Amino acid sequence: MSRWEDMPQGAGADQVLEMAIAAVKTADPAWERRAWDRLDSLTKPPRSLGRLEEAAARVAALQHSVTPSVERKALVIMAADHGVTAQGVSPYPPEVTAQMVANFVAGGAAINQLAQHVGARLVLVDAGMATDMHYGDGVIEAKVARGTRDMTVGPAMSRAQALQAVGLGMETALRVYAEGADLVGIGEMGIGNSTAAAAVTAALTGASPAQVVGRGTGLDGDGVRRKIDVVRRALDVNAVDPSDPLSVLAEVGGFELAGLAGVVIASAACSIPVVADGYISSAAALAAVRMAPATKDWLFASHLSAEPGHQIVLEAIGIRPVLELDMRLGEGTGAALAMGIIDAACKVMSGMATFQEAGVSDREVAQ
Amino acid sequence: MSRWEDMPQGAGADQVLEMAIAAVKTADPAWERRAWDRLDSLTKPPRSLGRLEEAAARVAALQHSVTPSVERKALVIMAADHGVTAQGVSPYPPEVTAQMVANFVAGGAAINQLAQHVGARLVLVDAGMATDMHYGDGVIEAKVARGTRDMTVGPAMSRAQALQAVGLGMETALRVYAEGADLVGIGEMGIGNSTAAAAVTAALTGASPAQVVGRGTGLDGDGVRRKIDVVRRALDVNAVDPSDPLSVLAEVGGFELAGLAGVVIASAACSIPVVADGYISSAAALAAVRMAPATKDWLFASHLSAEPGHQIVLEAIGIRPVLELDMRLGEGTGAALAMGIIDAACKVMSGMATFQEAGVSDREVAQ
Repeated sequence: MSRWEDMPQGAGADQVLEMAIAAVKTADPAWERRAWDRLDSLTKPPRSLGRLEEAAARVAALQHSVTPSVERKALVIMAADHGVTAQGVSPYPPEVTAQMVANFVAGGAAINQLAQHVGARLVLVDAGMATDMHYGDGVIEAKVARGTRDMTVGPAMSRAQALQAVGLGMETALRVYAEGADLVGIGEMGIGNSTAAAAVTAALTGASPAQVVGRGTGLDGDGVRRKIDVVRRALDVNAVDPSDPLSVLAEVGGFELAGLAGVVIASAACSIPVVADGYISSAAALAAVRMAPATKDWLFASHLSAEPGHQIVLEAIGIRPVLELDMRLGEGTGAALAMGIIDAACKVMSGMATFQEAGVSDREVAQ
Repeated sequence: MSRWEDMPQGAGADQVLEMAIAAVKTADPAWERRAWDRLDSLTKPPRSLGRLEEAAARVAALQHSVTPSVERKALVIMAADHGVTAQGVSPYPPEVTAQMVANFVAGGAAINQLAQHVGARLVLVDAGMATDMHYGDGVIEAKVARGTRDMTVGPAMSRAQALQAVGLGMETALRVYAEGADLVGIGEMGIGNSTAAAAVTAALTGASPAQVVGRGTGLDGDGVRRKIDVVRRALDVNAVDPSDPLSVLAEVGGFELAGLAGVVIASAACSIPVVADGYISSAAALAAVRMAPATKDWLFASHLSAEPGHQIVLEAIGIRPVLELDMRLGEGTGAALAMGIIDAACKVMSGMATFQEAGVSDREVAQ
């Protein structure tokens, strides 16, 4: 099967997912070597651009080109609501999810400024918000349900719903691919979703609830203790099985988390590198990597969030963040900034002269 | 004296320097408070954009505006040669200084790609290169001398030459100011100048030569040991006095280091924030802060270089780097990237809606 996206008519989401997983290629070591050879020939001391060179080499290897480019950038933001907010896990009321999506559409949020700054188009998806907002063309309205159920009393959603959400993410990635994209960022909006991310992280990595729970959007000490207890109860009630990532997403995840996992897998299957935002997006990416291990090669970590669980997720995936800016907003804000850095890295690699071209003495010549 | 740049006809560099130092204002705490009040009213959890908010608040306080902007960006790169290269402190031959400046003019270096990426114009200055290159309009040719003398046998330059180089930097900053700039970055090119930076850092902070010497552009272990010994000898021969930063620049500095110190002081005097690049630029900035302590408020550290002495310099100034990308190239490459991040921070602050404007429920409302 050369093009997984040519799936048979009427294929179910499970079939599409299976084909996408099979289509994700690992990075080609021969192209990685070619990329480093090129980088070492450019007019700078070898490796003196540090993480910038690592990013450029990775994109070069994935694009099979020593002049990589991520000119066309898209940032997919999935929004959903969470039944677990009934447990008082966020200082903000649930209606803020829809209000913030309206703010995204109006251009007033942080992510609007940062996406514009780095030249990324926003793709907003209602994967399961509690309210019907009718945003028009600004938002892809494809809600799986009006919010998840409270994960402390049972699974947040059915396995079929999780699969539907993953399918929505894959469909969104295909749409982004069809419109043209060299780099995809993932972000999210959903009051309560740092609790879901914490539960997914604990379930997939075996970390304790206390290790993966942070202040979220601004809890105090009591709030954090309550949230740890909520995660513990959710994991107990659902008896999560780390070897079945789709079930983990269903039981203690969220529609946006499952959707973003689908975006990651399908983007990688389409040979587009993906930049994960903060804790929640990275937890979704970890679920994707557990379903399709080869997607790891296509993933960039954007920044290290102030949320303590984020480090655990990134270590579990095996990727290092590009930035450390003490950010904890979500929305894709860290992904946008990192996309700008990766863009810069590709421009450096593609635009610089070699020692030979520039007539600059290399150090071998000197000694 | 309201405008220090209206200096009397025929004023000497020492007089201009004195007036510039007197003209640097400290940041206004009232404006800093106003900036944070504005940031806390925007549609995001308070302080959730971390370092981005710190950068925006600082620029806002310096610009006396809650909608700060650093649209007009200039990156001043000063180049010079170093007599100390006779001691074998660099794996590259001295002629690489001029070859790389030619590469800057031709657009083939890393800094060309990064300056273009963030929208900064390059201002190239020959502050004391050993060769005459006749670059035409591309380079301000104002060399103080054809390279410094070997600092291991005596002062690298006379005190008058150091003052001349500082004056050149101040003149360059005034030119940048006249052309219009909201943010100035500083970078450098000079084979041997990480040895000068190490010596200046040791002289100004009291750190030992072993603490401030790194691999530079790529020394091996033997090379590093030789370089430590060179710095030790330079400090001994010159009997440097940390309370006289201009003499430190003269004895163990370089024309580009003294020039960049002048750029920092005059930019701050013109109320333009300055972004220091890596180790060498930061050592120049430290010398500027020792001459004019109020310049500290106008300084941003761009990144933490892989050179170990850089951390010591930044701690001595009292500023935290925005980025940590394991870079050690110089040229202003880290400054360019950080200018992009500061630009993004200002756009976030200036473009975002408040909770009230966007009709988003704040958490006070929620509880």
